[in-house]
Amino acid sequence: MAGLKNDRFLRALLREPVDVTPVWMMRQAGRYLPEYRATRAKAGDFMALCQNPQLACEVTLQPLERYPLDAAILFSDILTIPDAMGLGLYFETGEGPCFRKKTDTAAAIDALPVLNAERDLPYVMDAVRTIRRELNGRVPLIGFSGSPWTLACYMVQGGSSKDFSKVRALAYSQPALMNNLLEKLSLSVIDYLNAQIRAGAQAVQVFDTWGGLLSGPAYEAFSLRWMQRIVDGLIREHDGRKVPVILFTKGGGQWLETMANSGCDALGLDWTTDIGHARERVGQRVALQGNMDPAMLLASPASIRDEVARILASFGHGNGHVFNLGHGITPEVDPGHAGVFIEAVHELSAAYHRG
Amino acid sequence: MAGLKNDRFLRALLREPVDVTPVWMMRQAGRYLPEYRATRAKAGDFMALCQNPQLACEVTLQPLERYPLDAAILFSDILTIPDAMGLGLYFETGEGPCFRKKTDTAAAIDALPVLNAERDLPYVMDAVRTIRRELNGRVPLIGFSGSPWTLACYMVQGGSSKDFSKVRALAYSQPALMNNLLEKLSLSVIDYLNAQIRAGAQAVQVFDTWGGLLSGPAYEAFSLRWMQRIVDGLIREHDGRKVPVILFTKGGGQWLETMANSGCDALGLDWTTDIGHARERVGQRVALQGNMDPAMLLASPASIRDEVARILASFGHGNGHVFNLGHGITPEVDPGHAGVFIEAVHELSAAYHRG
Repeated sequence: MAGLKNDRFLRALLREPVDVTPVWMMRQAGRYLPEYRATRAKAGDFMALCQNPQLACEVTLQPLERYPLDAAILFSDILTIPDAMGLGLYFETGEGPCFRKKTDTAAAIDALPVLNAERDLPYVMDAVRTIRRELNGRVPLIGFSGSPWTLACYMVQGGSSKDFSKVRALAYSQPALMNNLLEKLSLSVIDYLNAQIRAGAQAVQVFDTWGGLLSGPAYEAFSLRWMQRIVDGLIREHDGRKVPVILFTKGGGQWLETMANSGCDALGLDWTTDIGHARERVGQRVALQGNMDPAMLLASPASIRDEVARILASFGHGNGHVFNLGHGITPEVDPGHAGVFIEAVHELSAAYHRG
Repeated sequence: MAGLKNDRFLRALLREPVDVTPVWMMRQAGRYLPEYRATRAKAGDFMALCQNPQLACEVTLQPLERYPLDAAILFSDILTIPDAMGLGLYFETGEGPCFRKKTDTAAAIDALPVLNAERDLPYVMDAVRTIRRELNGRVPLIGFSGSPWTLACYMVQGGSSKDFSKVRALAYSQPALMNNLLEKLSLSVIDYLNAQIRAGAQAVQVFDTWGGLLSGPAYEAFSLRWMQRIVDGLIREHDGRKVPVILFTKGGGQWLETMANSGCDALGLDWTTDIGHARERVGQRVALQGNMDPAMLLASPASIRDEVARILASFGHGNGHVFNLGHGITPEVDPGHAGVFIEAVHELSAAYHRG
């Protein structure tokens, strides 16, 4: 494999010195880009795009053609795992993801297989290999998975929900049952992420989109405990280089200390958390990734630059910051504004890395 | 007016000793109760129910007939203010609240009147007076309002939204414009809550449902700053008794220290915050209200009791705790489970108030 020409992202995750703060955007290959919409139309629908390694590679690389991003992220969906387990994922317009089978009974959970990623999700591994080859060492490739709790939310609910209150209720009422499901999912996620690493992912991120819906003790019991299991089970060095692990719990700003004790390399922050305060709380244990409000990209270029400056100042001098949005970029963003954001991070951060 | 037979709620808000921890539930007059559904059917629709003081009184008292609650809360809606400003509130089935007019331009904001509550919302004041008379001193009556930021979210959006990202973007892009709107709303909320207090409300709560969508600095600028203005403008003593003010920002667990500095008497906590940790952070400045996950009411009675015990232990001995849910009770809850919750609070809390 080609040597890495830009390794700022990996260095920042390991809290090593960099020239400027690296930046990428969650959902950077997405609907705000007209070229993405064109490729998606060519693929037919969203799942067909995920399942076609050539087209998944094409959309993964699109934002890198436009912007000087410091990382690429595999184009895929967190719900590929339950789909590969046989639950029948489909997307209803305006409704989000749905499953033909719910996983809300002991029988359904018992019947669920543990994923064998190479066998069950070959299209994902093919996409990783294709993207690595096409990237040709420009920037590192990030692999990812949903967290066990987040996957369980969709599986038990049978689709999306505003608050997954039935899933929370199941966890509270029948914790042993919920933990059976979460254990199967944790083993599946470990296998899935390790397969992505072997196929070429150079860092991995666990997206815990719904951990923030839980009380503190329930977060530790049903989400963090299982992400901890994943951190413990991952390949942490591959091809002679460390493979950093990022945990991102949306709404998890109150629990950063315990998250930082998991052994992960970095924490993703949503935009509600002050990154400077977060840095004081986690100390030298982890790098931090984040955390501009994605809605700021709907504001003026001048506002975007001011906010980038504010976040850089809040983090301050020193190593261990990967700039990102606090959640995914949204379809209504002007691609020019995303460019302003990325340029501002590189330009304004240089002063924090001198000397 | 009749003397108050049960003043635990008011005493706890002022951090005075009580025999057991007082308890009420956000949205306690609501769709989980068959008698509420019957009265609502009689009224016609939700707004007709809000606008009929006799029926609003009837549903306010219904949960008190079933449970030994320590407070009543005015039955109304936070969007009565923008409705009275002429925006044309209506409810679309499955869509939530909608406005016929959006408030998303300088012209629309300039044209907006400041509320004169006695003139513009007489049905609310009539409901307060009717409820106070019918309560006859059983328990205190809580008045309430939405926070300026939360009202602005619905008004600028023209209805509900998952994340109000356009409203966040307007605040970021045009802070002066947003603050014009927020100032008018703050003056309106002050007038509205003071009118409720004069009509008989014995405590007031400001519901900041959407403050948690903001970054820390934006929360201070667009939500807390204006709630501070309200706290400063409220009648704090009426009829020879203090009128406590409760601020509740859903998702505001990271900002409790600055909220506690506003001069309010109590903070409402959603269920993601550990109440014991919150108490350490705010010290003696305020009482705390909360904070069981409402989804726990969908779990078994034994789980509900265990969770009540856990939260009581987390708060610990001493004064200043009003028990509540971390958000409103949901329609699918079995009314028997709500009863288990309320009984558990009274029974299990006695040990924390001895000696």
